[in-house]
Amino acid sequence: MLAAVVSGGFTLLRGSVGLATATAVPTPPLPSHVAMPVLCRARPRHQRWPNGNMLRPSAGFISHLAVDTSSATRVLRACTPSPIAPHGRAEEDFNRSTPPHTTTNKESQQAKARREARFDEEGEYRVFRELLEGKKTRFVSRVMYDGTNYKGFQFQGNDLPTVQGVLEKALSTRFQTYVPVVAAGRTDTGVHSIGQAVHFDLPNANEDLSQLAYSMNQMMPEDVRVWNMSVAPPSSPSQVEKGWPWSSMLNARGKRYSYRLFVGSVLSPLDRLYRVHASQAAGSPINVDLLHQTIPKLVGKHDFAGFSNEVDKRATLKMEDGLGEFNTVRTVYSAEVINEGGGNIRLDFHLDGALYRMVRNMVGALLAVAAGRLEPEVIDEIFATRVRDSRLIHAAPAHGLTLDTVLYDGYG
Amino acid sequence: MLAAVVSGGFTLLRGSVGLATATAVPTPPLPSHVAMPVLCRARPRHQRWPNGNMLRPSAGFISHLAVDTSSATRVLRACTPSPIAPHGRAEEDFNRSTPPHTTTNKESQQAKARREARFDEEGEYRVFRELLEGKKTRFVSRVMYDGTNYKGFQFQGNDLPTVQGVLEKALSTRFQTYVPVVAAGRTDTGVHSIGQAVHFDLPNANEDLSQLAYSMNQMMPEDVRVWNMSVAPPSSPSQVEKGWPWSSMLNARGKRYSYRLFVGSVLSPLDRLYRVHASQAAGSPINVDLLHQTIPKLVGKHDFAGFSNEVDKRATLKMEDGLGEFNTVRTVYSAEVINEGGGNIRLDFHLDGALYRMVRNMVGALLAVAAGRLEPEVIDEIFATRVRDSRLIHAAPAHGLTLDTVLYDGYG
Repeated sequence: MLAAVVSGGFTLLRGSVGLATATAVPTPPLPSHVAMPVLCRARPRHQRWPNGNMLRPSAGFISHLAVDTSSATRVLRACTPSPIAPHGRAEEDFNRSTPPHTTTNKESQQAKARREARFDEEGEYRVFRELLEGKKTRFVSRVMYDGTNYKGFQFQGNDLPTVQGVLEKALSTRFQTYVPVVAAGRTDTGVHSIGQAVHFDLPNANEDLSQLAYSMNQMMPEDVRVWNMSVAPPSSPSQVEKGWPWSSMLNARGKRYSYRLFVGSVLSPLDRLYRVHASQAAGSPINVDLLHQTIPKLVGKHDFAGFSNEVDKRATLKMEDGLGEFNTVRTVYSAEVINEGGGNIRLDFHLDGALYRMVRNMVGALLAVAAGRLEPEVIDEIFATRVRDSRLIHAAPAHGLTLDTVLYDGYG
Repeated sequence: MLAAVVSGGFTLLRGSVGLATATAVPTPPLPSHVAMPVLCRARPRHQRWPNGNMLRPSAGFISHLAVDTSSATRVLRACTPSPIAPHGRAEEDFNRSTPPHTTTNKESQQAKARREARFDEEGEYRVFRELLEGKKTRFVSRVMYDGTNYKGFQFQGNDLPTVQGVLEKALSTRFQTYVPVVAAGRTDTGVHSIGQAVHFDLPNANEDLSQLAYSMNQMMPEDVRVWNMSVAPPSSPSQVEKGWPWSSMLNARGKRYSYRLFVGSVLSPLDRLYRVHASQAAGSPINVDLLHQTIPKLVGKHDFAGFSNEVDKRATLKMEDGLGEFNTVRTVYSAEVINEGGGNIRLDFHLDGALYRMVRNMVGALLAVAAGRLEPEVIDEIFATRVRDSRLIHAAPAHGLTLDTVLYDGYG
């Protein structure tokens, strides 16, 4: 059963699909970022993930399809693999911050539908096959963005500004088909980046990548910029064995973040979008010496569950998705206080990967100590108990945080 | 003859005043920035300026008074000196960028009316007298602002965002009377500052200046901040002799500006509001060595008329105002190219004072040379001829420019 509802320029298809299928075929030129040009089908029972885990069986599948109304008549048709049907994003499932696996809100239904879009007729990963068969090539690019005007990296529907939305719109306009963009990791609303990494797949052609980057930068607003675009490096030996392609997310071997603080009395308006007034954030004057003394406690391999948010929710999601246990152990390779002069201080973190809100919560804990509200030993306690007192330690404001770079072998 | 016209919450008084007078008395609390709470009177013929020059005789005076409608009934009354009648700004007349001296548009009428507001009943400078008699104290403050959202420093009517408007609104709200704010110099739309200086006069009281700065910063948007507020230094010996007070404008003995460029391929979105992509601005790739080679030519005492805009207009205005000749000789004490790393370059200028658009035109000339469009000798030619070819040399974009500081004796 499928029902079509016209909604603000898009036709919203809502249906309990069962074994019925529908393919959304955007009519070029794309009128705007295409929300849901997905191949919908019932998830096969006992589907296997690439890592060998069993996928949670799904009785059926309810989805929204938002497609360009001008192509609405072409939406419903027999489900046959189509060369322009968009391919999916297997990597998303490995992201620890997978959206809620419910169908109670629009966002999660979109996420679910996007996830489903990975599969082709045979229940195989379309994207993997296309890359292995040499029909498409994977590209990697750095992305810089000022997070001020964005609801984070991840696409959340056409009406919310996101960096992924901006990138996918530019690529989809350029190639007249939906081109998914997968990032090394999501960043929250208001968080910046100068070295985010993304990958995307394009049909084989001799792309002039500097020209592609230039034309994307021309199409995008000034607060998002791509640079250092290249063909993705080869898969790692273990990936080759499994038939997996290189991934900006899975191949990341570390990340560097910086958090900018100001410890003077009046924060310069020219810094206000990228730097946090430390004593205002901490609620009282802060002692920089205490920052220096406390930050080394964060270095090392620890269970950072107490520095994250929504750990239980994410663990449940991961279990439900058959992806096994949610591992909250991370390694912070280094954490340093850099004096930038003029009351400006930068906290630099080099880590293997960050849990949701982890860096901002670490900075929040450091500020609580530096403001004299907590003893430095609170860091050890949070590691030991896996819990922090969220009344005393708040996540530091998003706009102080920048994802400086994602580290890879073979892509600098 | 006076006529009152209600206009959008304000009563607009339009009148050929002759010897008639009107005093605008804002009713506390002020509902918004008060545009025109001025004392209007005919300008006395053959008025003398403090510098001894004769003022251009004025046959009459037409003005707009925009006042809070709730106090409209109190607007017209016999003109007697009032302790809450706002005082004027003699210094503005010395500013070389005085607005056009016509009454054909609203802005210039406002400017003219503001100028008139300096005089009290006897045609004397109210502000000077009040300071000399010790009824008021002059204060000085630094101002930092992100110029992105402002139509420059100078107030241009309530409907246009200006830094002066923001400062005057905060002070006027705090003191329940109109407090004029005079800056060391105006900055253009989009130009930033971290060390602008302003002065303003307050009735004598034991002001806690750090508290005043704090409460102003609470009242103002985040992109304007005051700091280092203090009682103004004493007048210079020559000012004491003439009975002039210290002035943020007249006592400035130099200014430092910086202009930020990026010479790499993709400008970071985090820098886009404060830094200019050099090759984009120049129209072609630029040679940094040529910047280094050319910039010393700008140093020294020269006639900078060719690097300014609207020289003729400003000269005419000054003559009409009886202020004598418009002097376009300025001294650039130093001009340097600073390599900030990562493709970031800063041009630092230390000068006695800048003509209208002078710094941006100097940078525009440097970029034209660095892009290979002009020879370095064009700088010497502009000094010699007092003219630049505005088809080849454009003012560099405003957002790259920051007024770093205004230098004084006795106020750091």
